[in-house]
Amino acid sequence: MEKKVNDITSMDVDFAQWYTDIVKKAELADYSSVRGCLVIRPYAYAIWENIQRIFDAMIKKTGHKNVYMPMFIPESLLQKEKDHVEGFAPEVAWVTRGGGAELEEPMCVRPTSETLFCDHFKHIVHSYRDLPVLYNQWCSVVRWEKTTRPFLRSREFLWQEGHTLHLTEEDARRETLQQLDAYETLLQDHLCIPVIKGQKTDKEKFAGAEDTYTCEAMMHDGKALQSATSHYFGDGFARAFDIQFTDKDNKLAYPFQTSWGSTTRLIGAIIMAHGDDSGLVLPPDVAPTQVIVVPVAQHKEGVLEHANALLEKLRAAGIRADIDESDNSLGWKCAEYEMRGVPVRLEIGPRDIEAKKCVLVRRDNGEKTVCDLEGIEDKIKEELAAFAKAIFEKAKKNLEDNTVDAETLDEMIKSQEGRSRFVRAPWCGDEACEVAIKEKTGLASRCIPFAKEHHTHDGGVCPVCGKKALHTVVFGVAY
Amino acid sequence: MEKKVNDITSMDVDFAQWYTDIVKKAELADYSSVRGCLVIRPYAYAIWENIQRIFDAMIKKTGHKNVYMPMFIPESLLQKEKDHVEGFAPEVAWVTRGGGAELEEPMCVRPTSETLFCDHFKHIVHSYRDLPVLYNQWCSVVRWEKTTRPFLRSREFLWQEGHTLHLTEEDARRETLQQLDAYETLLQDHLCIPVIKGQKTDKEKFAGAEDTYTCEAMMHDGKALQSATSHYFGDGFARAFDIQFTDKDNKLAYPFQTSWGSTTRLIGAIIMAHGDDSGLVLPPDVAPTQVIVVPVAQHKEGVLEHANALLEKLRAAGIRADIDESDNSLGWKCAEYEMRGVPVRLEIGPRDIEAKKCVLVRRDNGEKTVCDLEGIEDKIKEELAAFAKAIFEKAKKNLEDNTVDAETLDEMIKSQEGRSRFVRAPWCGDEACEVAIKEKTGLASRCIPFAKEHHTHDGGVCPVCGKKALHTVVFGVAY
Repeated sequence: MEKKVNDITSMDVDFAQWYTDIVKKAELADYSSVRGCLVIRPYAYAIWENIQRIFDAMIKKTGHKNVYMPMFIPESLLQKEKDHVEGFAPEVAWVTRGGGAELEEPMCVRPTSETLFCDHFKHIVHSYRDLPVLYNQWCSVVRWEKTTRPFLRSREFLWQEGHTLHLTEEDARRETLQQLDAYETLLQDHLCIPVIKGQKTDKEKFAGAEDTYTCEAMMHDGKALQSATSHYFGDGFARAFDIQFTDKDNKLAYPFQTSWGSTTRLIGAIIMAHGDDSGLVLPPDVAPTQVIVVPVAQHKEGVLEHANALLEKLRAAGIRADIDESDNSLGWKCAEYEMRGVPVRLEIGPRDIEAKKCVLVRRDNGEKTVCDLEGIEDKIKEELAAFAKAIFEKAKKNLEDNTVDAETLDEMIKSQEGRSRFVRAPWCGDEACEVAIKEKTGLASRCIPFAKEHHTHDGGVCPVCGKKALHTVVFGVAY
Repeated sequence: MEKKVNDITSMDVDFAQWYTDIVKKAELADYSSVRGCLVIRPYAYAIWENIQRIFDAMIKKTGHKNVYMPMFIPESLLQKEKDHVEGFAPEVAWVTRGGGAELEEPMCVRPTSETLFCDHFKHIVHSYRDLPVLYNQWCSVVRWEKTTRPFLRSREFLWQEGHTLHLTEEDARRETLQQLDAYETLLQDHLCIPVIKGQKTDKEKFAGAEDTYTCEAMMHDGKALQSATSHYFGDGFARAFDIQFTDKDNKLAYPFQTSWGSTTRLIGAIIMAHGDDSGLVLPPDVAPTQVIVVPVAQHKEGVLEHANALLEKLRAAGIRADIDESDNSLGWKCAEYEMRGVPVRLEIGPRDIEAKKCVLVRRDNGEKTVCDLEGIEDKIKEELAAFAKAIFEKAKKNLEDNTVDAETLDEMIKSQEGRSRFVRAPWCGDEACEVAIKEKTGLASRCIPFAKEHHTHDGGVCPVCGKKALHTVVFGVAY
């Protein structure tokens, strides 16, 4: 009756197939009858709930409130901001019939909700006393992508979208960067994924934004995953939607706006930043199960009793622990929880019980430690913290080892030999040169990095036109 | 600069306008540019988050797991179960274009997700070992209603929908009633709204269900609000979607299915079950703010300091407390938090501080009590519990006082004189008589009640055909 759980393609053999195998065998997602749309299964949804819990607490602490806007956008509303509609109109789904009749005006299913928020802001913002407005929404959005992959790119996905209005440009810019930092904290401190923070080039920025900022993560295969973005809008949307307020001097003014978002693609990031050939490796903060208790020789007297006592002890200490009392073999259970990426496995059998011990097995490195049952909850907390640090450091090493420098197009091309890497290169700031780099090397600009350590080509020359570089840009192949 | 907050229509003058005034002035919802769709504003969304938190914990405790299904249903999938499609097809919205092209097959936006869950269940259920499947989803659904009212009936609303599969009919029926009880607990113990539990007549049951059960609540105006429903499907959907499993005897069998749901209309129920002419009255368990601290003469030295110390003391005790330090007048603040239905207001001024006291004002009855600051957190917890009990009892009195008995159509018509009431009446079980009652009295069957106290006409005769009654039915006018 036992199914084999660790039969997955090696990531060195076929990274894409390795990813798909994990999604299927760790029961994260199922394909649906709706092309390009996904069923998010309980295990993946529980990871998402943990991400939501962490990020929701962060944004509430900084004064943001959740709201819910309609899922539909009337065509006329979508068209109000020129750049925005140009960016999104080609990839939306249109509702044209409702309640048995053709609609007078087609509505798209929201690909993002700037237009709906602006429509509402116009109703609620009248005075400087109404500012700032700090809103967020957890919902699903739809973008009619041609090619899709579970979590990474699907026609419908779950996300949060923050939308804020401010009195001054300075306030709005501060909010934009504060939220970028919040994403960095979410990614680095909770998902254990190191990121390169920076600004998108004009070509890569969000449709309608003045400036877009990003957290770029590196996957095992050296490709980039844009993990979260934060946008400064200036007063462009406010003008397009005629959102005005009376300022302290009794004059009409336009507020300054931001938006920022992160999605269920973070689940894909977790898979590809930490997983290995045995399956998932989950960051403790978002693992649905942090510790799995596995009874050994569970038919013997007292084993299940002691295993359950251990379970309750862990739970009482606030650790997300579970037990597997099924009649599957020990080998099957070990493989199963490796596949599912549970950070710590605790084995407890008759001899352990007699010695008042249990065996702790770490998912990341397979190390086994015999531990006292006395004080096990503190030991587990230490191990989970060490685990988080270890997988972060491992991912950081991957990022550092595979971030290289290049001064010429040739060097940029050579940097991708054998595998994908991030390449830091000088750039003049001209979009034509950015396009030429993409055409000639296959590399897209990921961001103009903030951190000085990445400013390796400041003062260099553009590899395309030879003019003086304005920035060092991080280029890469992206998901 | 102060806006008047308590300028709302009296519920005795115009109940519908009273409701609309509260929705607007307590900043619960805003009309959107999408006809029939609502903006759920932060205050209402925070109530919904509290409802979610409570109910989500309840269903997880009983082994349910959250998932996420696509929001679209291909036309062919919707059509698989005959009764279901007949019930829902007339009121769905259709997506016909996506990514710039006509779709090969139109998809509706989910009005409910039985078909999507079944499509997935077919992939994951193969053996009796895979049962039960206990899933739930929090999402938005769309039903293209002709007339809409905030929270009560809108084209898009938020809800949870549970979907479960079981080995036996008995298991599935137990689940159906267990979840009905969970809704009763949510409504009575947390929202302080008494309900009449019972079974829907065949005419009123969910499209595709064998049996539908309901919690019916009474609003201030004597009208019924169907507050949550739980459905037993038998194996009808399983057969339509060809979901089969191998049982213990190695034979193929169909599983038995349930679904159950509750929606943001619960926010409407809270308004209309507890609100008064000064505004909202919120049940403590779901009130975003349970206690508002209002400093008196806050410009005087030490007042804000002591008020904030009081706030922190309450928060440390796990009470959802806020403070209003704005420069609005005391009168304005009192009216504002009455409007918002905050259960307890604590006033603290220089004389209170000197006496180590504060003034506690209850939202439900306006009673003022001078309390010691020492031990105030325990006092507040007592008061919140007493508050919950008091508003439940008040709503229960309304339900009892306005539930009457009738034996004839004339008596049923007379029962509605002056105001709406619930009417218990005998019924033969024939749908034609149920339709005749609706036509002649305007009253729809709400449920066949479970509780013996409501079986006042068992053994009576049907007011339409004169045949022996099968049941006592609760009739009423419904939202």
